[in-house]
Amino acid sequence: MLDRQAATAFVVSQGEELLSGQTLDTNANFLCDRLTDLGLRVLGAATAGDRTQDIADVLAASCARADVVICTGGLGPTADDLTAEAASEAFGRPIELRADALQQVEARYRRAGRVMADSNRRQAMLPRGCDLLENPVGTAPGFALDCSPARLYCLPGVPFEMKRMWADRVQPDLLDRLALRPPQRRLFRVLGRGESQLQDLLGDLPTLFPGVELGFRTSMPENQVKLVAEPDVPGLDDAAVLVRERLGRDLFSEDGGEELAAVVGGLLLRRGERLALAESCTGGWISHLIVTEAGSSRWFDRGWVTYSNQAKVQDLGVPLELLEAHGAVSEPCALAMAEGARARSGADWAVSVTGIAGPEGGSEDKPVGTVCFGVVGPGVQRTRRMQIPSRGRTPTRRFSAFIALDMLRRQILSPG
Amino acid sequence: MLDRQAATAFVVSQGEELLSGQTLDTNANFLCDRLTDLGLRVLGAATAGDRTQDIADVLAASCARADVVICTGGLGPTADDLTAEAASEAFGRPIELRADALQQVEARYRRAGRVMADSNRRQAMLPRGCDLLENPVGTAPGFALDCSPARLYCLPGVPFEMKRMWADRVQPDLLDRLALRPPQRRLFRVLGRGESQLQDLLGDLPTLFPGVELGFRTSMPENQVKLVAEPDVPGLDDAAVLVRERLGRDLFSEDGGEELAAVVGGLLLRRGERLALAESCTGGWISHLIVTEAGSSRWFDRGWVTYSNQAKVQDLGVPLELLEAHGAVSEPCALAMAEGARARSGADWAVSVTGIAGPEGGSEDKPVGTVCFGVVGPGVQRTRRMQIPSRGRTPTRRFSAFIALDMLRRQILSPG
Repeated sequence: MLDRQAATAFVVSQGEELLSGQTLDTNANFLCDRLTDLGLRVLGAATAGDRTQDIADVLAASCARADVVICTGGLGPTADDLTAEAASEAFGRPIELRADALQQVEARYRRAGRVMADSNRRQAMLPRGCDLLENPVGTAPGFALDCSPARLYCLPGVPFEMKRMWADRVQPDLLDRLALRPPQRRLFRVLGRGESQLQDLLGDLPTLFPGVELGFRTSMPENQVKLVAEPDVPGLDDAAVLVRERLGRDLFSEDGGEELAAVVGGLLLRRGERLALAESCTGGWISHLIVTEAGSSRWFDRGWVTYSNQAKVQDLGVPLELLEAHGAVSEPCALAMAEGARARSGADWAVSVTGIAGPEGGSEDKPVGTVCFGVVGPGVQRTRRMQIPSRGRTPTRRFSAFIALDMLRRQILSPG
Repeated sequence: MLDRQAATAFVVSQGEELLSGQTLDTNANFLCDRLTDLGLRVLGAATAGDRTQDIADVLAASCARADVVICTGGLGPTADDLTAEAASEAFGRPIELRADALQQVEARYRRAGRVMADSNRRQAMLPRGCDLLENPVGTAPGFALDCSPARLYCLPGVPFEMKRMWADRVQPDLLDRLALRPPQRRLFRVLGRGESQLQDLLGDLPTLFPGVELGFRTSMPENQVKLVAEPDVPGLDDAAVLVRERLGRDLFSEDGGEELAAVVGGLLLRRGERLALAESCTGGWISHLIVTEAGSSRWFDRGWVTYSNQAKVQDLGVPLELLEAHGAVSEPCALAMAEGARARSGADWAVSVTGIAGPEGGSEDKPVGTVCFGVVGPGVQRTRRMQIPSRGRTPTRRFSAFIALDMLRRQILSPG
């Protein structure tokens, strides 16, 4: 936790669908993350249902505690959209039809080629004295209200609209009004090292760079390293250089950077090379990760999901005798799968995965979680066998997909 | 909303990682859903950080409002695990070492073959007079406390542990103490009909079956129909029969039933038939959905991700002239892909998808979102061209994967 006295925030979510469990609230998480990034301390969060008095109580209590309150939801045109009324009640500001808000609502309907229903006038009924926050991507305008000492921002609940208005209107307003100087942050995304290894490797950073804080976060098999420092601390760039140096090839991406599949794609594109896949237990997950990246057709050629042994033999040319001698989950089979995929596609590189994702199919020799990988390319033939920490079929498959892509990444970066 | 006077609940989440945005709170959503299912009305939810006073304030305020309060998080062994202390403070119950709790913690460590650190004694320090809630899958025990008129349940924040303790301990205790008679619920999962069509089709149900409420929910391309009724309303089973009748083949699964891929797998298994896939724009997503289901090797043979045109020609035998005449995104190409996959695999059925997921690659003739499908099987050759409603590359690919599986499902159900 940073030392200086931070400005404080509170996040309010409004909607009966949140309290009935029908909708997972991702807005509060987004706002907590962004507010923290700006250097505010989030004191708490609350969810209110579709009752004006409940919403008013939550707004009044949170505005009494924090410098900034951000409320999402309840700005639509229907009778259960009550946020403006609740703010009116909580802070004694009469609600009134705002001509500028009405114009915005009407304009949005016109642009969409629709006629505004009378009920939509409701969306222009706002507490007196509020600042209108234009919604460039939806019909419901937002508003900001000074509720001394707090400033309250009310945004629509549709995540897409809320995020856009946060970026366009709320964040600049906050930076300006609170004269915020957000902390400096760096995020490093790592594969191949666990949290305790990272602690050993980087634990001296806060000593080497006073004022720089070090943090970790895990999303298996990825680990993340975070550096945070006050805006006037000078060493963060140097600390980041040291982190990069020490992490070496284990660092695959930085804050706001590419996903692993895109990193691999970038490496291949720069070399003008193409990739083929031979998947068994990952069952298309690696292909899926790759094709999720727009433009992957420039470097991804094709993939085989050879789930049955027959497919491994017929489509990839894995010798039947090899399967009989070593089994489908073996390094020789992984190698043969990758060789077959490379030869048949003509791609420069091929990656293969074959393993036992469970819950059935394990044996003493090859328990559930045994996964074999192959990477072949120009002058390259690598295999690897791993025991994936057992946390179920889907986590094992996900883990394997990332390991496979990462093996290729490392191979391209450090031939030989 | 049901009419009778419902028992009320409040959900509290504890953890600084929630307020910093580092962790998305899925516990509150789970609990809101389950509490609503039991017939309780959730009045609100709140999140508190790692400050004893904040947690105590939230616990006291929520116990003053609701019959049941469920709090998750803050039961671990470290100094920032403060929930027991906060409950002690909020309700004036001194905190004390509980011998039975300590035994449980020690036993968990013993079973894991580890020695309990002294710091773990902290997990056995609980408010006087509480009921211990055993944690069968983790070290942190939970507890329940009568905070008249409310009953407070404190559970660990690890979702896996929390859910297990909800099912084993909290739900039975609630049913018993509140003499709850949960409403009757039915959920129907539908493909091929939008919400307004479902409203037209089923809108008369509440009139035909007084006391039965009708609700909808969308997760494109799936729509869900919900029926809810008080426990003593007699017509729900009859209403469900009528819903099934009217939905016909558009109904693919019911509450607690199988995912779409598993439904398709069940149909194939019963016929002793196997499936092959030929994917282009879905890029392995259909394979991934299938292989996610344990045991899918009994009916899924293999898949091709023929992302390049060359792969379509080489691996699936799509004639080059066909590609030149119609393009890769065309019904003739989808048919040739499916035919090729079926012939080369020897599987009974093959499904193909080829489309323009965007953001690039669209044309006037074939805008982004144009997707063609093929299904071939014993005496069956079907194709379909669709314009997927544009909401981005990944939603378009997801939509297409579900449509493809659904085409196969319908074809098997209604040959000809």
